[in-house]
Amino acid sequence: VVAVLAGGTGGAKLARGMLDVVGPERLTVIANTGDDVELYGVHVSPDPDLVSYWLADRIDERGWGLREDTWKVMEALEAAGGRAWFRLGDADLAMCLLRTEALRAGARPTEAQAAVTRALGVGASVLPMADEPVRTHVRSGGRLLPFQEFMILGGGSSGGAPVEGVELQGVEAARPTPEVLAALERAEAIVIGPSNPIASIGPILAVPGMREAIAASPAPVVAVSPFVGGHAVKGPTDAFVAQAGLPLGAEGVVRAYAGAIDGLVADRLMDTPAARRRVARITLDFAASLRPS
Amino acid sequence: VVAVLAGGTGGAKLARGMLDVVGPERLTVIANTGDDVELYGVHVSPDPDLVSYWLADRIDERGWGLREDTWKVMEALEAAGGRAWFRLGDADLAMCLLRTEALRAGARPTEAQAAVTRALGVGASVLPMADEPVRTHVRSGGRLLPFQEFMILGGGSSGGAPVEGVELQGVEAARPTPEVLAALERAEAIVIGPSNPIASIGPILAVPGMREAIAASPAPVVAVSPFVGGHAVKGPTDAFVAQAGLPLGAEGVVRAYAGAIDGLVADRLMDTPAARRRVARITLDFAASLRPS
Repeated sequence: VVAVLAGGTGGAKLARGMLDVVGPERLTVIANTGDDVELYGVHVSPDPDLVSYWLADRIDERGWGLREDTWKVMEALEAAGGRAWFRLGDADLAMCLLRTEALRAGARPTEAQAAVTRALGVGASVLPMADEPVRTHVRSGGRLLPFQEFMILGGGSSGGAPVEGVELQGVEAARPTPEVLAALERAEAIVIGPSNPIASIGPILAVPGMREAIAASPAPVVAVSPFVGGHAVKGPTDAFVAQAGLPLGAEGVVRAYAGAIDGLVADRLMDTPAARRRVARITLDFAASLRPS
Repeated sequence: VVAVLAGGTGGAKLARGMLDVVGPERLTVIANTGDDVELYGVHVSPDPDLVSYWLADRIDERGWGLREDTWKVMEALEAAGGRAWFRLGDADLAMCLLRTEALRAGARPTEAQAAVTRALGVGASVLPMADEPVRTHVRSGGRLLPFQEFMILGGGSSGGAPVEGVELQGVEAARPTPEVLAALERAEAIVIGPSNPIASIGPILAVPGMREAIAASPAPVVAVSPFVGGHAVKGPTDAFVAQAGLPLGAEGVVRAYAGAIDGLVADRLMDTPAARRRVARITLDFAASLRPS
């Protein structure tokens, strides 16, 4: 098994490349759930879904949500005066309803996400990092905002809002799930995807027991840097890394993951399937070279 | 205030006629919540919403749901292999999301329904009969089914499935809300709409304290019969009334509401706005004639 730790787009793209290289049976993605949010009573899980949509080849070109989706429910909510600051397409919402139904029926988040990936026809495993709720909050402009609110309302995706700190509410009570522990234990390689080291990968590594389980695994651990030419390809990663007192670029990544990784794959663009496969292959080859012989 | 007790279509049509006759400020509808159901984690409230859609002039001609609605979410759920036995249009779902959001934020069902009716621009009050959950179950073919499942899966709307009994789960713990009690107390007339006396009005009257509050009100209580020519206009009312051992027609209605009503308005069709207004006016005039002078 190749275990890929992933937040949003960067990690999801790498996972998609890895799917081509190792096949669905050998791919397990451990996804950040710190961005999860309940909207209109519906459980939305942005990073696990983003990964699932990428793996299903159904990601929309806008970078999130499902391709060829429609917006009827959001239009009706807005017409009714509802706040639709977090916009979900109709089919995207349908996936969230499947998840919510499973959760209300007593399923663990791991099982609920499996219902979503199954519905999308994804053969690989997409595992929430923990079944307990962890809610990443961002301190910005003196306010403490849930991650998605910071990203959407605070202009986070354009990097406009200042980042003063990150809080991971609930993380002390979270634990890696049995599925996550099994994947890490059986892994031939553990790959940290090129997602935001502080706000996306940070919550995964902050789950008590996660770093220990990674360290205990015989698999080599390789991170793929999210920086290309000294800046993150997408999103507010620069602001988070800078706020954490780390330099932008490979050095910052190595320091963010200090003690957790054996090696770093330098910055690459992954904007085509071939490029995604290439990065996946390079990463795996690099991991293999690090394996104790 | 005119207080109208309503289940589905019959009561909703009468309420719509009453809206024209007395205006929104003077109309309060007390709606059956025994058909409520949670679907995909979303709280669906068929009767209060049906009444609200009628009052908003947005009822679809199929007899439920919103006019000109679309079905994108249901299509996506079905494409994903989800069970969509209960079909909700996208805008209909949006109303349910508004309700669910309010409930998850701690609102009472009464307040959550008010958010929906406000969103629809309805000025009249649509009150759930109780804030506590009551779930009407139908015994049919040896099975005990939630009302909506009986209606949709069991062919209930075509009257095809046998009715062996009705159970109102949770009704012992339910109480009329403060809003319902206030409306009954201030009412100049209490009107029982032409909905199913057993399965729709029955749950309202079965809420402990409801019959007492109606009896304590100085207002005359008039029922409008759901029977036209000895049969219910729509739905499985005949089967429920027969199963309860009551004759179809006015006599059955009088016996179903024994002790609760002062008079009965006979069977009328309400298939045009003018007809709905006429029944509303007749009912009010009749109620006025019953008022102690």
